[in-house]
Amino acid sequence: MNSTPDHTTVTVLGLGRMGSALAAAFLAAGHPTTVWNRTPAKADALAAEGAVRADTVAEAVTASDLVIVCVLDHPAVQALLDPLAGSLTGRTVVNLTSGSPEQAREMAAWAAGHSIAYLDGGIMTTPDGVGNRASMFLYGGSREAFAAHRDTLAVLGDPVDLGADAGLASLYDAGLLGLMWSVFGGWLHATALVGADGVTAGAFTPVAVRWLTTVSLFMDRYAGQIDAGHYPGDDATIDVQLAAIEHLLHAGHARGVDGRLPELHRELMAKAAAEGNGGDSYARLVEAFRGR
Amino acid sequence: MNSTPDHTTVTVLGLGRMGSALAAAFLAAGHPTTVWNRTPAKADALAAEGAVRADTVAEAVTASDLVIVCVLDHPAVQALLDPLAGSLTGRTVVNLTSGSPEQAREMAAWAAGHSIAYLDGGIMTTPDGVGNRASMFLYGGSREAFAAHRDTLAVLGDPVDLGADAGLASLYDAGLLGLMWSVFGGWLHATALVGADGVTAGAFTPVAVRWLTTVSLFMDRYAGQIDAGHYPGDDATIDVQLAAIEHLLHAGHARGVDGRLPELHRELMAKAAAEGNGGDSYARLVEAFRGR
Ligand SMILES: NC(=O)c1ccc[n+]([C@@H]2O[C@H](COP(=O)([O-])OP(=O)(O)OC[C@H]3O[C@@H](n4cnc5c(N)ncnc54)[C@H](OP(=O)(O)O)[C@@H]3O)[C@@H](O)[C@H]2O)c1
Ligand SMILES: NC(=O)c1ccc[n+]([C@@H]2O[C@H](COP(=O)([O-])OP(=O)(O)OC[C@H]3O[C@@H](n4cnc5c(N)ncnc54)[C@H](OP(=O)(O)O)[C@@H]3O)[C@@H](O)[C@H]2O)c1
Repeated sequence: MNSTPDHTTVTVLGLGRMGSALAAAFLAAGHPTTVWNRTPAKADALAAEGAVRADTVAEAVTASDLVIVCVLDHPAVQALLDPLAGSLTGRTVVNLTSGSPEQAREMAAWAAGHSIAYLDGGIMTTPDGVGNRASMFLYGGSREAFAAHRDTLAVLGDPVDLGADAGLASLYDAGLLGLMWSVFGGWLHATALVGADGVTAGAFTPVAVRWLTTVSLFMDRYAGQIDAGHYPGDDATIDVQLAAIEHLLHAGHARGVDGRLPELHRELMAKAAAEGNGGDSYARLVEAFRGR
Repeated sequence: MNSTPDHTTVTVLGLGRMGSALAAAFLAAGHPTTVWNRTPAKADALAAEGAVRADTVAEAVTASDLVIVCVLDHPAVQALLDPLAGSLTGRTVVNLTSGSPEQAREMAAWAAGHSIAYLDGGIMTTPDGVGNRASMFLYGGSREAFAAHRDTLAVLGDPVDLGADAGLASLYDAGLLGLMWSVFGGWLHATALVGADGVTAGAFTPVAVRWLTTVSLFMDRYAGQIDAGHYPGDDATIDVQLAAIEHLLHAGHARGVDGRLPELHRELMAKAAAEGNGGDSYARLVEAFRGR
């Protein structure tokens, strides 16, 4: 199978839940796709859809200039690719396996040492969101590789360029998941609160989702304050929010709702106020999170 | 000044930062507006724009069928309105002063006892967002009053109907503010994390804001699970997230970022897993927040 101008040949290593979704998206977009998985049976469905099944990793990596890896973890990636460094020279490896920024930077250094173009990615969706342009795929690493393969990678989801540092996709990924857990926590706490007075999650959640749009406007504004290191409280001060959070704690306590999450927010705000920064905006609290 | 079919006469009691914005929005929309404030000078700018200045609260409340109150707190509302219960009979009071659900329900009972139609509201924006249809104004209370005045109230922002329980606007308000602090916390934690590797808040925040759209899709899905009391982990399980949060804790620790927020998320997840629910979706954690 040869590559055509619009249909770059692609290899996918790893056909778990995520790797299978990646390969299926390439196939659906018309890319000649070679696949390999440690347990061969997982390639059956894709082969039936037209994927080329490789019997060995070596065969798989030499089938395409663009090699996508999506296996369990970093040690699995190393075990697969390290023996094949010579065959990979001159090709591009896009590593979509989750890991740490340090592991990604180690892979980038290894790739550079073998003249392999390397991109490290973070997949900000579940397998059912692969192939949807609304899904973010974060990439950091080789500028040339990103420019050359951006359009092909766009088949998986919207490629978000984080620049030359291969460690950033993992770092963003971790930070964004942390944001997700915080959103979930705040929303579940609120859902328990209103639920105590008979409101269903189905009634409350559309209002909560809509509210996130307003909260996003604050985040945009506060991002500029953080980069300027200056936190004018002209919209709403920490002092005002410290007063308001008492209503939340009281309402939650009266309904037996677990208060640890709002108590932590109060603790962070109270510390800023005690340090004389109660007249600042909430953005000041970035300093409470930063290492000293 | 007489009311016209499209321009209901309105009274606004309390001209602090928020009350002034409310009165200005009514004026801008062409509603004949009577204003009163304890400290009279705060009415000057509005009077210059065409507002009618009332010298006493009694004069103010008898000027309109629709009376909006926005003062500091519940005791201030009671002190203002209780002596005028007789004059308010047959009129509608819309209380936009922040308070607790219990205070709102007390006001509703007081109003019912005097044949005053009562709505309790929650303003989900700062004064600069008043007059914008994207801003949510939450209302609970008299069905007749909401139906009669919905269009007039729409001048302030989008009226969101929470039904007949006057306590719900305050309860939603508290829950939504809690969600906001949680979003801020997760975002500031992540901003500190990526900031340690040289990423600005201005670069990270648009990605974080976009991610909230994806997180919102999970919330919509999980709301149905919560109401059904059934939490299938077919998209992502608590066990998988427990593994993933270790990356976040590790990356944060390596960068000296305060870990209390993700540690609390881990604690909640670990407890659910220890109880045998690790194969469920994150929505299961609503039970950790609910009173036992
Ligand atoms: N699923 C998601 O929603 C999601 C979202 C974002 C990121 N990710 C990341 O995507 C990666 C794959 O996740 P997944 O959901 O596809 O997991 P999965 O369904 O558990 O699949 C794991 C894959 O890794 C392979 N593998 C494990 N150890 C290996 C080794 N030593 N050598 C070769 N192959 C090995 C497995 O092969 P066998 O079939 O032979 O076991 C399988 O193909 C993970 O890093 C995950 O964090 C997943
Ligand atoms: N600002 C916001 O972003 C915002 C957002 C949502 C909800 N709210 C709520 O809106 C309400 C007003 O907030 P604000 O920002 O306008 O506050 P503010 O600027 O501090 O104004 C407070 C107002 O309350 C009046 N007041 C206080 N005690 C009174 C009393 N005993 N009798 C009569 N009037 C009294 C003040 O009159 P004087 O001028 O005579 O002092 C002033 O008009 C609060 O419940 C607040 O929580 C505000």
